[in-house]
Amino acid sequence: MQSEPIFDLAHLGHLELLTPKPEESLRFFVGVLGMTETARQGDSIYLRGWDDYEHHTLKLTVSKTSGMRHMAFRARSQQALDRRVAALKDSGYEIGWTDGDLGHGPAFACHDPDGHTIELYYQTEWYTAPPGLRPALKNQAQRFPARGVNVRRLDHLNCLAVDIKANRVFFENYLGCRLTEQIVLNDGTESGMWLTVSNKSYDFAYTRDHTGTRGRFHHLTYAVDCREDVLRAADIFLENGIYIETGPHKHAIQQTFFLYVYEPGGNRVEIANAGARLILAPDWKPIRWSEEERKKGQAWGLKTVESFHTYGTPPVDAPSS
Amino acid sequence: MQSEPIFDLAHLGHLELLTPKPEESLRFFVGVLGMTETARQGDSIYLRGWDDYEHHTLKLTVSKTSGMRHMAFRARSQQALDRRVAALKDSGYEIGWTDGDLGHGPAFACHDPDGHTIELYYQTEWYTAPPGLRPALKNQAQRFPARGVNVRRLDHLNCLAVDIKANRVFFENYLGCRLTEQIVLNDGTESGMWLTVSNKSYDFAYTRDHTGTRGRFHHLTYAVDCREDVLRAADIFLENGIYIETGPHKHAIQQTFFLYVYEPGGNRVEIANAGARLILAPDWKPIRWSEEERKKGQAWGLKTVESFHTYGTPPVDAPSS
Amino acid sequence: MQSEPIFDLAHLGHLELLTPKPEESLRFFVGVLGMTETARQGDSIYLRGWDDYEHHTLKLTVSKTSGMRHMAFRARSQQALDRRVAALKDSGYEIGWTDGDLGHGPAFACHDPDGHTIELYYQTEWYTAPPGLRPALKNQAQRFPARGVNVRRLDHLNCLAVDIKANRVFFENYLGCRLTEQIVLNDGTESGMWLTVSNKSYDFAYTRDHTGTRGRFHHLTYAVDCREDVLRAADIFLENGIYIETGPHKHAIQQTFFLYVYEPGGNRVEIANAGARLILAPDWKPIRWSEEERKKGQAWGLKTVESFHTYGTPPVDAPSS
Amino acid sequence: MQSEPIFDLAHLGHLELLTPKPEESLRFFVGVLGMTETARQGDSIYLRGWDDYEHHTLKLTVSKTSGMRHMAFRARSQQALDRRVAALKDSGYEIGWTDGDLGHGPAFACHDPDGHTIELYYQTEWYTAPPGLRPALKNQAQRFPARGVNVRRLDHLNCLAVDIKANRVFFENYLGCRLTEQIVLNDGTESGMWLTVSNKSYDFAYTRDHTGTRGRFHHLTYAVDCREDVLRAADIFLENGIYIETGPHKHAIQQTFFLYVYEPGGNRVEIANAGARLILAPDWKPIRWSEEERKKGQAWGLKTVESFHTYGTPPVDAPSS
Repeated sequence: MQSEPIFDLAHLGHLELLTPKPEESLRFFVGVLGMTETARQGDSIYLRGWDDYEHHTLKLTVSKTSGMRHMAFRARSQQALDRRVAALKDSGYEIGWTDGDLGHGPAFACHDPDGHTIELYYQTEWYTAPPGLRPALKNQAQRFPARGVNVRRLDHLNCLAVDIKANRVFFENYLGCRLTEQIVLNDGTESGMWLTVSNKSYDFAYTRDHTGTRGRFHHLTYAVDCREDVLRAADIFLENGIYIETGPHKHAIQQTFFLYVYEPGGNRVEIANAGARLILAPDWKPIRWSEEERKKGQAWGLKTVESFHTYGTPPVDAPSS
Repeated sequence: MQSEPIFDLAHLGHLELLTPKPEESLRFFVGVLGMTETARQGDSIYLRGWDDYEHHTLKLTVSKTSGMRHMAFRARSQQALDRRVAALKDSGYEIGWTDGDLGHGPAFACHDPDGHTIELYYQTEWYTAPPGLRPALKNQAQRFPARGVNVRRLDHLNCLAVDIKANRVFFENYLGCRLTEQIVLNDGTESGMWLTVSNKSYDFAYTRDHTGTRGRFHHLTYAVDCREDVLRAADIFLENGIYIETGPHKHAIQQTFFLYVYEPGGNRVEIANAGARLILAPDWKPIRWSEEERKKGQAWGLKTVESFHTYGTPPVDAPSS
Repeated sequence: MQSEPIFDLAHLGHLELLTPKPEESLRFFVGVLGMTETARQGDSIYLRGWDDYEHHTLKLTVSKTSGMRHMAFRARSQQALDRRVAALKDSGYEIGWTDGDLGHGPAFACHDPDGHTIELYYQTEWYTAPPGLRPALKNQAQRFPARGVNVRRLDHLNCLAVDIKANRVFFENYLGCRLTEQIVLNDGTESGMWLTVSNKSYDFAYTRDHTGTRGRFHHLTYAVDCREDVLRAADIFLENGIYIETGPHKHAIQQTFFLYVYEPGGNRVEIANAGARLILAPDWKPIRWSEEERKKGQAWGLKTVESFHTYGTPPVDAPSS
Repeated sequence: MQSEPIFDLAHLGHLELLTPKPEESLRFFVGVLGMTETARQGDSIYLRGWDDYEHHTLKLTVSKTSGMRHMAFRARSQQALDRRVAALKDSGYEIGWTDGDLGHGPAFACHDPDGHTIELYYQTEWYTAPPGLRPALKNQAQRFPARGVNVRRLDHLNCLAVDIKANRVFFENYLGCRLTEQIVLNDGTESGMWLTVSNKSYDFAYTRDHTGTRGRFHHLTYAVDCREDVLRAADIFLENGIYIETGPHKHAIQQTFFLYVYEPGGNRVEIANAGARLILAPDWKPIRWSEEERKKGQAWGLKTVESFHTYGTPPVDAPSS
């Protein structure tokens, strides 16, 4: 009999994003995306979408440059968290326990082979809407803002990494993440991976950093309800002078209906419709995309823009070729 | 420390629906809903939506009357299935192992306190599209049919039961299902429950059978991608002379955007948009709706039609009051 | 040869709405519907949707009660206006020239057989967006507000009248309006009419006032782009505590996808999707709905709520029966 | 006083499209687009969308090559037709009366300065749906097909021409068409024009043929109800192996949400959402786009694909540069 798969992580919890332009970034996330600020502490502002159930899903921190400082996953239970911590101990990837942060309890930090910091936690603070933000329907975290893009919830993030395979093996073995799709080049090199811990078809993705730099960030994604909402987001970005990198269009990989922009701090942000496509199979067979298949471009034929392969945060000089 | 929650079931797998009008029912499911027939055997036809990954999600069986013969859940692993079977053994609810059916391996059958039959299985047959139905994108089970309502996948089902609380306790304790919403009357009687085993906000619901009859069925639901698809479904049902019971409108409970019709065999079928609202929290706190709240009707004020409370399959005489 | 039809009116221009609660009404139209204020003068505030090309489409005037003070149509040319004025002279319906108002030039006023005031004008002031409201695309009147319901443009209005046929004949003969749909009772009485002067399937409708009161108002309608926008409007009204009378649902008549609410001043407001259905035929044959057909309710079977037949503004006591 | 504008044409009626692959083209228009065949005669098949009120909007004719044989406009009345014919007589553009065709009465043919043939007619045959295609709602021409893309109605067409200005002057002066948008190069050359005879923001467009060839065709467009329908069309084209040239995306000019494909006969076909944006102003001030503005690409930044500027039907050799 096959060994039993691990289902210890519940979902991507939040990420900490760095911005050298905090005021402009805040105006983007609150005024244009329609997010809600829940707290400020030190150099950080804590934000969430209207359907995010936790205290925050985005921690926006002032920094000299852009990029992601850490991502965090919530475990399914205290026991599940303890099992993951036990697995990480003496793995070479562990960093150790932190006291937690605004909004969640103790977190165990580790790093992936590429150097990105990952925190695992279970205890969390459920968001309680203040009077002016109370929803009409009590099964909803917060009143629908009816402002800007109205992003619903954090959907996933995407990091860059030098060695995709090493990272895949790390996330599968230590965290019990499940690979749903990947890109494998003709020479066998893995160049992209999409993993999930939930029924979403992916909670995060890693794609290859062609600059050879470690620890960089590609994008974070907030979900809206339908493709029409993504199109409307494009209209709103246009009106607000936000740089649209590519989209709206449909990825062949994962079939995400995407729209990529750069927030004023320089980080790439995606708006995507979410949820219609779920991976219900607990033993999903990963889809492998070849080099030839990727050359076809996106689902409906759009050629992938060059910057999508080269731009990440913090920015680095392009590799000499 | 709290005892660890059970996550042994992966998702609702399929249900067996009875129809006294097999040809008309088949025309409804294939011609109007846009489902695909995968097999016929004995008195049954096996059907699926274009994104259902298994051999079938609906087994349509000729019968003298309407209703549901059994529902089936897929376990997350063989070990998870074995744990659920062990729990059910000597519980008084077990029926025993079956050899399985077209499309899946051995299944362990049990019944809930109301008498509905439930099967649990792990081994399954993945659907492989024949040449004419192969999708353009290989991460999709089947080509999009572009016919009728184009239902994507089985979403949930709803049974009627005499004693909701007894059924809730059964599903929580023996199968590890998680209650996400419920209706509790002023006298404390539970009169409706919505449970999940996945990130969908419910995989099945039970509501009270006011006729006092056991084992009856309320509806099954196929998901489409967005609310616009539900509206279009209403247009299509209208054109096809299918009886629309109520909707499209939005439920306050679970916020499902619903549309209920009766298929020719008499069973209620719902078309709903699916997926935008996910329950990611592994420790979701059930939402409790009171009698007063339910009297407000649906989310946008629609009064619930009387038949929604009284009609189920197989039909019974209305209770004398 | 048939006499040549009249095409002298271009479109419904605006209406003047009365409200006893001006602040609350303003908050509704600007804050919830997403309209833009263009001017204030005397007891009136002038408003428009983001795609309305003129100075205003709604003049909101403080009053002791609710209702409509006048509606206005823009002619296709000065010559076309002059022809309509010539036709109305000595008709018994003429009121006479006014000096115009903020936003438009001289208007010729008349009243319909039920006593509603109608103004006809040609000279108009095109809206010019101030810097903060300039659109990114120059073929658009104003920046998309991304606030609340984001109504696009005035679509139509609906008055109540005691004698529908008399009003139909007036609008056809004097103003060259074209009947597209109507309700005719079994005894031959006309009880509802939908007329157009453009390619919209109707620019206004009149339905019978069962109270026998003259000059009352049923509703005004602002258009949004698609049915999803109407559904989202329902979500937003729910969050804002706006009373939803009925909908969203699809009218059988005209197939409008509708949502009716009462603004705080008491007037009924409809949000509808607009534009997909156009009447391109210059000689459209009016659709006649019978009493029996109307009893079927709306397109997908919703029963028409009683208040839709009885409530108008200003309110009157219900007729004694 | 300004001279009175001409409103003699009602709408674009139909076009005759040539195809060297009639069977494949028919399969595309009926099977993939969801159109209905209404008649066959000689080498032609007559087709329409489900909401087109006339006998046909597309006449598909077998030919050695692709392209458009004629376009036809319906006049607002017999008198209006007679006025246009009188204007064309002795203009050098007239061809003369034809006996009409299946579906419409006598037509007066002329050609534009580029050599495209245009027919004007008034008498027309209203489509009457046969029993199997009768709609549930009697204000609809035909039952919604629920097959493929489900195109609703002919929206517009686009020709190529060597001298845009000459064509603009012809359509304005002889046919009373109104310019709504245009492209004017830095040297003053007009290189694109969008004209309307209705409340649609354009009924046809002409763009410059860089090959210097006369009489060529760029595309025809069928309308669907909303942007989601255009996205779904892209999914369906992908599944059916139809070549997608560009889109879905939003044009800056006219703000059309577009999707361009090549039908098997080689002609370019656009699917667009229709109707939300109407030109109600009878004296719309044309929008002029400069060379610099066009270099920005489409509304959300998509670069215009090269073939969009070079490919037309019938195909010609590319100009030597």
